[in-house]
Amino acid sequence: MIEFEENHRPLILVTNDDGVDAGGISVLRELACEFGNVVVVAPDSAQSGMSNAITVKVPLSLEKIFEDKGLYIYKSNGTPVDCVKLAFNALLPRKPDLILSGINHGSNSSSSVHYSGTLGGAREGAVNEVPSIGFSLLDYKHDASFEAARPFVRQIIKQVVQNPLPDYTFLNVNIPQGDDLKGIKVCRQARGKWVEEFVEREDPRKQKYYWLTGFFQNLEPNAEDTDEYALKNNFISVVPCRVDITDHSAIDQLKDQSYEMSVKGIY
Amino acid sequence: MIEFEENHRPLILVTNDDGVDAGGISVLRELACEFGNVVVVAPDSAQSGMSNAITVKVPLSLEKIFEDKGLYIYKSNGTPVDCVKLAFNALLPRKPDLILSGINHGSNSSSSVHYSGTLGGAREGAVNEVPSIGFSLLDYKHDASFEAARPFVRQIIKQVVQNPLPDYTFLNVNIPQGDDLKGIKVCRQARGKWVEEFVEREDPRKQKYYWLTGFFQNLEPNAEDTDEYALKNNFISVVPCRVDITDHSAIDQLKDQSYEMSVKGIY
Repeated sequence: MIEFEENHRPLILVTNDDGVDAGGISVLRELACEFGNVVVVAPDSAQSGMSNAITVKVPLSLEKIFEDKGLYIYKSNGTPVDCVKLAFNALLPRKPDLILSGINHGSNSSSSVHYSGTLGGAREGAVNEVPSIGFSLLDYKHDASFEAARPFVRQIIKQVVQNPLPDYTFLNVNIPQGDDLKGIKVCRQARGKWVEEFVEREDPRKQKYYWLTGFFQNLEPNAEDTDEYALKNNFISVVPCRVDITDHSAIDQLKDQSYEMSVKGIY
Repeated sequence: MIEFEENHRPLILVTNDDGVDAGGISVLRELACEFGNVVVVAPDSAQSGMSNAITVKVPLSLEKIFEDKGLYIYKSNGTPVDCVKLAFNALLPRKPDLILSGINHGSNSSSSVHYSGTLGGAREGAVNEVPSIGFSLLDYKHDASFEAARPFVRQIIKQVVQNPLPDYTFLNVNIPQGDDLKGIKVCRQARGKWVEEFVEREDPRKQKYYWLTGFFQNLEPNAEDTDEYALKNNFISVVPCRVDITDHSAIDQLKDQSYEMSVKGIY
């Protein structure tokens, strides 16, 4: 376990899915250090698209690569969720006050929230009742610039430090590319999906194989209260996301359709 | 693309996360065949804990291992979500009428819905506007018996075939172990989490490594409307789950806390 000299600063855990060497996490780590003591636990290689995956087949590594007063950096072979679990159970002296994940190189808006390892890390924080935020920049390039994003990311961290998030809820923050950022909007998740276009190839043994590719389709492009709309208009989108994914309104509908039954027949 | 002889039967896609050879998927496949033409696309090895993960680093394989009138079985090196995407884009002649995922060997109730590859497959169906159900048996053993579950799984499939699910919603069905099943309950997701207990080991180079283990903690054991409560009382739990995970009630709360801002200051 890490032992911090007690300085009454918040304890902040930082992770991501692009790997500990990515540009986005170094910016997030720097900003986190403005607010508290920081422990970074991040994948040793890119774990994009890993969603909420956990590693069950192989053991997890955990290696310290940096230590200075108030900042510790570790890398692991695990997913972002594994990194959060490892930090909680093998490193942190107490439950952290905040978990920051990202800044992802690439968008995680709309239904991409479900495939994103960045948001997996944030969700794992919320499951454990820690205020958590996933940040993503709409620029997947390795050398993406996070400079325009920096003051807004700082502002959102400050908000969450000052105003606790609703219990069991985490934030999905997406940031448009470029310098012309207009501000921050609180939004709902737009309805959309990835339209896949698998590229088919043939290996030397004449077996077909496929590369996943495709484009995102926004199914409600005119809905002004969505993250996609905000992003298109150069606003940073903040979507509060639930750990409890029950469709509460559907419960009565299913009961009305006689889903419930006993072994002796319908109730 | 598969070409079915047109017989006006529903087209059903079956997947899982335990792999194409698991006992649970063979039961689900048999039941699916009672309702329509069936295409199975499942992982060639266990993909437990893969959540909604997609494969982006390596190409995907897709190999037919069985074909008979009305039933096709394929295996892939991908995750359950990859399998659904491959089926949609490389195999199925049209959008399927139903996606069935499972029957998983092991529970996926409460917050386990987020780590489950079985439910990842079902969610991918719902994202694509196909009625989808993930089934799990509370017995992780390789030789688990699915016999007591069989009539209830058939009943739930029948319900979904007859009464379309709410748009963008999929079902998380969990089935208690044993023969003493009392019936089916429509529930909400219980609040709970995995309490990890990493087992620490040392490799020959004196590097520590960790095995993920732990136990599930139900944080509201007396809540009668939850899946955990139903399962504990030998009822099959049916939780309708949302693709849109926005915490709509938190949107106003965040706006009140002045999360929104323009570059010129708070709105």
